[in-house]
Amino acid sequence: MIDQRISLPEHENIVAAARRLEGFARVTPMIESTTASAVCNAWVFLKAETLQHTGSFKFRGAFNLISQLSPEQKALGVVAYSSGNHAQAVAKVAQLSKIKATIVIPSDAPQIKIQSTKNFGAEVVLYDRAKDSREDIAASIVDDSGATLVPPYDHFDTIAGQGTVGLEIVDQLRVLNQSPDAVLVPCSGGGLIAGTAIAIKQNFPDTEIFSVEPEGFDDTARSLASGERETTAPNAKSICDALLVPTLGQLTFSINKRLLDGGITVTDTEVKKAMRFAYMHEKLVVEPGGAVALAALLNDKNNVFAGKTVVAVLSGGNVDPATFGAAIS
Amino acid sequence: MIDQRISLPEHENIVAAARRLEGFARVTPMIESTTASAVCNAWVFLKAETLQHTGSFKFRGAFNLISQLSPEQKALGVVAYSSGNHAQAVAKVAQLSKIKATIVIPSDAPQIKIQSTKNFGAEVVLYDRAKDSREDIAASIVDDSGATLVPPYDHFDTIAGQGTVGLEIVDQLRVLNQSPDAVLVPCSGGGLIAGTAIAIKQNFPDTEIFSVEPEGFDDTARSLASGERETTAPNAKSICDALLVPTLGQLTFSINKRLLDGGITVTDTEVKKAMRFAYMHEKLVVEPGGAVALAALLNDKNNVFAGKTVVAVLSGGNVDPATFGAAIS
Repeated sequence: MIDQRISLPEHENIVAAARRLEGFARVTPMIESTTASAVCNAWVFLKAETLQHTGSFKFRGAFNLISQLSPEQKALGVVAYSSGNHAQAVAKVAQLSKIKATIVIPSDAPQIKIQSTKNFGAEVVLYDRAKDSREDIAASIVDDSGATLVPPYDHFDTIAGQGTVGLEIVDQLRVLNQSPDAVLVPCSGGGLIAGTAIAIKQNFPDTEIFSVEPEGFDDTARSLASGERETTAPNAKSICDALLVPTLGQLTFSINKRLLDGGITVTDTEVKKAMRFAYMHEKLVVEPGGAVALAALLNDKNNVFAGKTVVAVLSGGNVDPATFGAAIS
Repeated sequence: MIDQRISLPEHENIVAAARRLEGFARVTPMIESTTASAVCNAWVFLKAETLQHTGSFKFRGAFNLISQLSPEQKALGVVAYSSGNHAQAVAKVAQLSKIKATIVIPSDAPQIKIQSTKNFGAEVVLYDRAKDSREDIAASIVDDSGATLVPPYDHFDTIAGQGTVGLEIVDQLRVLNQSPDAVLVPCSGGGLIAGTAIAIKQNFPDTEIFSVEPEGFDDTARSLASGERETTAPNAKSICDALLVPTLGQLTFSINKRLLDGGITVTDTEVKKAMRFAYMHEKLVVEPGGAVALAALLNDKNNVFAGKTVVAVLSGGNVDPATFGAAIS
């Protein structure tokens, strides 16, 4: 069994995750965007996790967890629930590890995410986001099969794996003899930003870390302000299909309330403009949820980031052609 | 004055170009495409020059030439004619060098290329591809202004600059202790493939180099077969707007007939499929002309590349949203 530690991952656990990922995950490029720098009057770097295996950072956490399973656990397979990016990541890691994966995905997820998960050889179970509980469906599969659940964000090894994004940001800026003034990270369950914040703050204690969320799904921003885990309104809507979790995790909030410096919210219109910007100027395909940090930078109305060295994480690039075509036109 | 050498660039000239480009051009990622590898039953790497400054490899040659101009030459500015990618590159390098650029572009070039050239501060002169001679227009500007012409491909320094793509491929494969069996390169005027071939063959003499051209613009393939410089039919059409030069250069052909191992031709339909493939699986924006080498790999009907280690250069990513949206849908 995986050790169900209630302790929180620390920097050394992220370093250990990076060692496990070496040769399996891609070290993704950090792109100095001269065009975004000009727009923002800042020095802007884009961490392109869109170019990670399966098109999002989720490969890192999934690999870090699954690679530590025992042979007995692997023989029984893995289960995950996901809006689509974690789904593809778990499916791909299971394929690499030659083990069975069953993935619970909402039926209204982008087709590219559902199809890609199937292409990686996983069994896909669709559910109705309005009526069904994905946690219950996954728990029932675990009960029946003995498979191991791979949680999308609220798990020691998932957070440590995602934190390797932060380690790479540190390494890639150190080559330039720079430290960032701010790092902006897309946020929903909070695993990516929690792990990234641990890695960044350990190395650059003065760097500010900001979560970025879509309007209506600003539970992290409100939780940071109130000090309690807040939830989103059940009728909220956003094009950011990857960021629709109703509330951030317990472990992730324990980390984020300690390490984050604030939460920023962006509109769907701002997100689409950021997708178009990344297409036009950086030739990168970024999905709506993956573009929120760039959107926050490009819409920095109060000039919070002017004159600063800023990193925006582009967390994923899995978007249906029609959605992408509409955003860039 | 630039030395108008009629000698051909050699490996040492490409190494010198790489030194000039250091800190100015991006070292672009070489992406191991597990999906393309599965489709082709090969080990496929994609050299993503789409992520170069200005969205194509052309930045390299333009920088290598312009950075060697004397202060007196720089004071008089530069002139270029181009279907759009060389245009943006010269405009951007001129902007970085704080010198004036005048660029001659066909009026039917993609809007993204014309607009981006203007955004980099260049003066744009549009011409009618069917009626006007771009060489004559550029020569007249040179006569009037004393500006230096920056040739798009048939120049010692342009070829040497583009060759740094090949040097990076060598370095990036050596890290993996690999040498490629084949390298596929988009080809029109032939500067990119000429420089790349010099760098690759110097380091990996057994690697085969193939030009890839759109159907109807296979002048390099036919020239390699006949041993003479062939031209394309005047009524030929292709969506690959970057690859419509009617015949390859004199310098480039002198190099290419010695170093290339063959020419491959792809259809517009195959090109659009490759653009969609890069979008779906690698989250990269690739323009039609930039996707021909990948198209050749994905349509390897005779299994020429099966079982081999193959690099395909993605040479550019400047494509209008409507064209891109149609290709990926």
